[in-house]
Amino acid sequence: MSKGTVVLAYSGGLDTSCILVWLKEEGYDVITYLANIGQVEDFDAAKKKAESLGAKKVFIEDLRAEFVEEFIWPSVQASAIYEDRYLLGTSVARPCIARRQIQIARQEGAQYVSHGATGKIIAPWRIPEFYNRFVGRKDLMEYAEKHGIPVPVTPKAPWSMDANLMHISYESGILENPKSHAPADLYLMTKSPEDAPNSPDVLEIEFKKGVPIKVTHVKEGKSKDTPLDIFSYLNEMGGRHGVGRIDIVENRFIGMKSRGIYETPGGTILYHAHLDIETFTMDREVRRIKQGLGVKFAEMLYNGFWYSPECEFVRHCIDKSQESVEGKVQLSVFKGQVYILGRESPKSLYNEELVSMDVQGDYDPCDASGFIKINAVRLREHHRLQGEHHSKH
Amino acid sequence: MSKGTVVLAYSGGLDTSCILVWLKEEGYDVITYLANIGQVEDFDAAKKKAESLGAKKVFIEDLRAEFVEEFIWPSVQASAIYEDRYLLGTSVARPCIARRQIQIARQEGAQYVSHGATGKIIAPWRIPEFYNRFVGRKDLMEYAEKHGIPVPVTPKAPWSMDANLMHISYESGILENPKSHAPADLYLMTKSPEDAPNSPDVLEIEFKKGVPIKVTHVKEGKSKDTPLDIFSYLNEMGGRHGVGRIDIVENRFIGMKSRGIYETPGGTILYHAHLDIETFTMDREVRRIKQGLGVKFAEMLYNGFWYSPECEFVRHCIDKSQESVEGKVQLSVFKGQVYILGRESPKSLYNEELVSMDVQGDYDPCDASGFIKINAVRLREHHRLQGEHHSKH
Amino acid sequence: MSKGTVVLAYSGGLDTSCILVWLKEEGYDVITYLANIGQVEDFDAAKKKAESLGAKKVFIEDLRAEFVEEFIWPSVQASAIYEDRYLLGTSVARPCIARRQIQIARQEGAQYVSHGATGKIIAPWRIPEFYNRFVGRKDLMEYAEKHGIPVPVTPKAPWSMDANLMHISYESGILENPKSHAPADLYLMTKSPEDAPNSPDVLEIEFKKGVPIKVTHVKEGKSKDTPLDIFSYLNEMGGRHGVGRIDIVENRFIGMKSRGIYETPGGTILYHAHLDIETFTMDREVRRIKQGLGVKFAEMLYNGFWYSPECEFVRHCIDKSQESVEGKVQLSVFKGQVYILGRESPKSLYNEELVSMDVQGDYDPCDASGFIKINAVRLREHHRLQGEHHSKH
Amino acid sequence: MSKGTVVLAYSGGLDTSCILVWLKEEGYDVITYLANIGQVEDFDAAKKKAESLGAKKVFIEDLRAEFVEEFIWPSVQASAIYEDRYLLGTSVARPCIARRQIQIARQEGAQYVSHGATGKIIAPWRIPEFYNRFVGRKDLMEYAEKHGIPVPVTPKAPWSMDANLMHISYESGILENPKSHAPADLYLMTKSPEDAPNSPDVLEIEFKKGVPIKVTHVKEGKSKDTPLDIFSYLNEMGGRHGVGRIDIVENRFIGMKSRGIYETPGGTILYHAHLDIETFTMDREVRRIKQGLGVKFAEMLYNGFWYSPECEFVRHCIDKSQESVEGKVQLSVFKGQVYILGRESPKSLYNEELVSMDVQGDYDPCDASGFIKINAVRLREHHRLQGEHHSKH
Repeated sequence: MSKGTVVLAYSGGLDTSCILVWLKEEGYDVITYLANIGQVEDFDAAKKKAESLGAKKVFIEDLRAEFVEEFIWPSVQASAIYEDRYLLGTSVARPCIARRQIQIARQEGAQYVSHGATGKIIAPWRIPEFYNRFVGRKDLMEYAEKHGIPVPVTPKAPWSMDANLMHISYESGILENPKSHAPADLYLMTKSPEDAPNSPDVLEIEFKKGVPIKVTHVKEGKSKDTPLDIFSYLNEMGGRHGVGRIDIVENRFIGMKSRGIYETPGGTILYHAHLDIETFTMDREVRRIKQGLGVKFAEMLYNGFWYSPECEFVRHCIDKSQESVEGKVQLSVFKGQVYILGRESPKSLYNEELVSMDVQGDYDPCDASGFIKINAVRLREHHRLQGEHHSKH
Repeated sequence: MSKGTVVLAYSGGLDTSCILVWLKEEGYDVITYLANIGQVEDFDAAKKKAESLGAKKVFIEDLRAEFVEEFIWPSVQASAIYEDRYLLGTSVARPCIARRQIQIARQEGAQYVSHGATGKIIAPWRIPEFYNRFVGRKDLMEYAEKHGIPVPVTPKAPWSMDANLMHISYESGILENPKSHAPADLYLMTKSPEDAPNSPDVLEIEFKKGVPIKVTHVKEGKSKDTPLDIFSYLNEMGGRHGVGRIDIVENRFIGMKSRGIYETPGGTILYHAHLDIETFTMDREVRRIKQGLGVKFAEMLYNGFWYSPECEFVRHCIDKSQESVEGKVQLSVFKGQVYILGRESPKSLYNEELVSMDVQGDYDPCDASGFIKINAVRLREHHRLQGEHHSKH
Repeated sequence: MSKGTVVLAYSGGLDTSCILVWLKEEGYDVITYLANIGQVEDFDAAKKKAESLGAKKVFIEDLRAEFVEEFIWPSVQASAIYEDRYLLGTSVARPCIARRQIQIARQEGAQYVSHGATGKIIAPWRIPEFYNRFVGRKDLMEYAEKHGIPVPVTPKAPWSMDANLMHISYESGILENPKSHAPADLYLMTKSPEDAPNSPDVLEIEFKKGVPIKVTHVKEGKSKDTPLDIFSYLNEMGGRHGVGRIDIVENRFIGMKSRGIYETPGGTILYHAHLDIETFTMDREVRRIKQGLGVKFAEMLYNGFWYSPECEFVRHCIDKSQESVEGKVQLSVFKGQVYILGRESPKSLYNEELVSMDVQGDYDPCDASGFIKINAVRLREHHRLQGEHHSKH
Repeated sequence: MSKGTVVLAYSGGLDTSCILVWLKEEGYDVITYLANIGQVEDFDAAKKKAESLGAKKVFIEDLRAEFVEEFIWPSVQASAIYEDRYLLGTSVARPCIARRQIQIARQEGAQYVSHGATGKIIAPWRIPEFYNRFVGRKDLMEYAEKHGIPVPVTPKAPWSMDANLMHISYESGILENPKSHAPADLYLMTKSPEDAPNSPDVLEIEFKKGVPIKVTHVKEGKSKDTPLDIFSYLNEMGGRHGVGRIDIVENRFIGMKSRGIYETPGGTILYHAHLDIETFTMDREVRRIKQGLGVKFAEMLYNGFWYSPECEFVRHCIDKSQESVEGKVQLSVFKGQVYILGRESPKSLYNEELVSMDVQGDYDPCDASGFIKINAVRLREHHRLQGEHHSKH
């Protein structure tokens, strides 16, 4: 008799294939679930493999559009960036993948999910029966051979990867030494800046409520206007020009430092364009508060707390802050870099007349004196006291 | 009889030349003071001009070394960046310039400074007698002609500039329209990325207590090891490769938005290198607090509060945080971009062994389960309550 | 011919009576406006006085209900407290008063308001023609006599007061010396704790969305359920028991320190009751963020920025955070103190079963071990490094 | 053969007595350690009991002075208060107790500590062999009987307590229901405010660098001037007047809510007195930053992170902020409440003259106008835009 049904997040690789077979051995019915979040993958092959290994049902889910609209867009609004550098491409995909897995489990009446984020979870790599049996890769290979699990023929790269529409990350293996440079042929999403075109592409991105609603290639006149098309096109442009590569050491949630290399072409372009239109249209003090919330949002996202009350709260607040963030930004992408060229907005708080007045001196200079003097009241008192004490000693 | 002595911050340009003569007309003795903070300037000519216009004494002060060590270095430690983009090149020069002006005033027994930041200040552009007399540039020209003040022959650029060792800023004039792109020939410190060399330069920067103590050109073996030499060399390298150009709209202290274009070649390289070595060596939670203090520091600096109790306090705290920030960062500069390549440190909190264990599964996986479950206690309660309410309604 | 119409915030006192007459002298039509925000005042007498001094029109506006609902309630939600002690009774009344003044000005077609917060403002105490003429109280008295302005017969208290429904503040005069104690007969809203009843009153306050919807006197069974009634009743109860007196030195917006004495009976009870029900029903991390926003809100309120974009934004966010803040709090008031006695809520995140399990050890103790060990990963690395360095030196 | 030596934090109660015997059964040598941190306890009896149960060595350590100076004082400086209410009396004792335990372990060459905070720890309540054997109190009693462990004769209170010099906390048992009121006879450190004296005691506390250096009873002239004496005297005074009782629901580190009742007489007096002298002497903006650091410090302390790099960093910063926090505060304690009466300081930033000028109008009112107008630039732009959009719709 079955111990119950498990919805297993299945990649088609050696690990999850062994887990599939092992779960069956342990007496579970297994439904496999593979999310298409934009990674390069032979989904048909994965489907067939899962079926041949005994999956009761196989789900291949195209989540790309919701990934962009419901997960990447809020991160763009938040200017979400972890420890000043990482655009969170892996982190932002997780809640998207997990959500569908739970939906499938509910719909199929499954009691367990494996490798998801909430509820009853079977996480073989944290179960002694499993991890004591499969100590190294060799154990997995032997198990695979014994159970007719096809073993990948291409040699494994000497690092691990995580790919989706937003980014590819590379870590571990030869990258673990933080001093050694990344090999030149590592990157799959972006051209090397050295090999990128010798002239820039100029793009115009239009925003409304803090999210892009259109991107136009200024010279070619070509444009995109659905979230997935916009993001894919920015990936293409950014990829062509080598935009968005970083090599960092970051702090993991569990408290250790880890070296990661990331390429996030479209995300990097959007981060810069959004920052520009936001500063152009948002009040300074609102932005200061929103900036603090954005830092918190990035930490929550990184630590896996998307579905927490605090993250829901912060997303709500950030969304509110974006109401007037609209307008167009022109930028060029070239040799790994994004250059903002100009911006315009019907909701800008920028007042050319005011700027101009200030420069020419028409602006009432007495007001500035008063402003400065009142700001100095506190400083004068401080220095008065310092002086007294210094002169006493 | 003299109304007293004024130490006038003198640039040699039309404005301050007219002010010099006007102050004399008003009955003051005038000492001129020109700070060399790395701007390109004919200091000798300025000296002669001031003398010929009647300055009682002329000070030309080379502040470059102290500018780097006492003002730029603390900003590097703080990762000081205003509104996520501006590296504060103008703001960081002001307290350096003002400090010396006050020192000169004290030493020379002057009662006033003009255009400085504290004490009794004569700010002609905020005095009605002055600003009502000189409404436009034409009035200044006439006044100059009448008083034999040499007028610059080169036509004024259609924007204004502020230059020092750290950066050049460009604003106003034709740049006031935030939509129009900056002209290609605007930049004086950096080559256009399009014209920059087709191969990168690789540099190694060594840090101690959060400040650079040495920079080495990896291929050429050349190195620099005094603050001024290091910074100048990074300016040279960054300038050659077009590093550090930004075009932004920022929020001024007085509450209006303003468009500025900046080039900060050496500062941009240092910002990235310091960020890398800091994350590598600093505890995550210390860094989180320090990051918040750095944001505050940037605002204080931008708003002109270097010599405030809060800024002294924050500088002290940030300095404390940098005690273990030491090690070497390798990076390449290429076509406008800085790429971190690797890092090493005797004080790193990075533990290759620990990283590796985690990946291979030797790390006790049960602990991770416990960690996750306890972290989920709060979330479970939240969702339990949500569920109750949803099912009731 | 009239220079235009001014809506003057008029108190009936010497100052604003002189200003009324002076404005007429200067050629303005004057409409007086007196807001009833709960202060003890003879409104009829003030009306007659204004009319007799030549006011074109007199507005006496009862703002008490909107003051409670639209200004005090959001402050309660925010736990607004300035510099850890001051409940902002004066600050919270200002935007309420100013709003109506502007409404009257619009409705009456007035071009000016006097002493309001925005727009064209006539602020006589900041106009040289006025403040040079009225240097001391004596000048006002003479002016009053000359223009038939009735002068108050009761001698002025040797301090100044600001009273409304929320509080009375006392400052200046003999209170300026921060060392001297406040006289025992200063307070008008609260009894001295020494003279307060020798047995407590026990109240139950019911909250919904973070604001009180009902207060019940537990023993007497008496209850109130409109905002104004609730707040007034809490003032009565708090006043009877001497609740809410503080004597502080605070930092003014303009940068100087100032000594103020406040009594806020109802506000103090609500502050404590709201804090209790909020912590009971709100997620810890949401509350942590909300707490930071509340500190910012208090500063904005204190500095007069209620009608700013950042304050609107923060009020929106805080309001969102209060969605589940509902339930009942029982408390006693006695001899100047508020004691929370117990609380209950249909939306509490408190789980008695979970608490109990933890204590008895049924809670899985292994999870706690894992949680602790993972939290210690970072600390172990830190101490490992410290140790290395210590042993080297 | 011994499995090694354990330093066991021993209270003399049933639990730790059983653990002592069980550890011996398991093959360890046991050293018991009992910290005197001010709790009421028969230390001699505990010593004898430990010896009779087979402890190899018994340490009774009087840590009261270092508890006050090294742990309570920094918390006072930080104004450490958890979730706006809890003064952290239990949390602040833990690092003090743990530190000595580790010192003893090092000195005695012990390999293990039991119930300490770092290193190799034996935590029986988290070891399955132990907690499965002792499911309820009955199992402990049986074990005690069997092994000749004396069982307490006084019936256990229907709640649990934690006592030290700073506070007593009460939780669990009948207190678990957050709605039920605490019994009147619960409190051991403070008199009921209802039974407290009918006239206040007035105290003067003198601070230097943010910590009290002297307390004087103003009428009696009696004074104390060592840390332990000062704190004990404040406990006595606060206890006599019923000061410092709170009943709260708080958020535990592990994510659940818990109800706790605390009495902290001396700590509460100090919290208020320190807050007063700090605001009196510290610059507003420094205090704003310090306030944020204090909130973080309280969270770290509550969560057990005293010996973390971030807590060391924050303590350093807070200590720096206290340099000028000196002067005298007069206050009265009466019927559960602390009333600040006045303060004086040689380092105050309070300027009576400046305050006075402002009130009388000698202060240049034009400066205030300028200050207000410049502060309004941003708001005017915001409202201009709002208006435009409103009029369009």
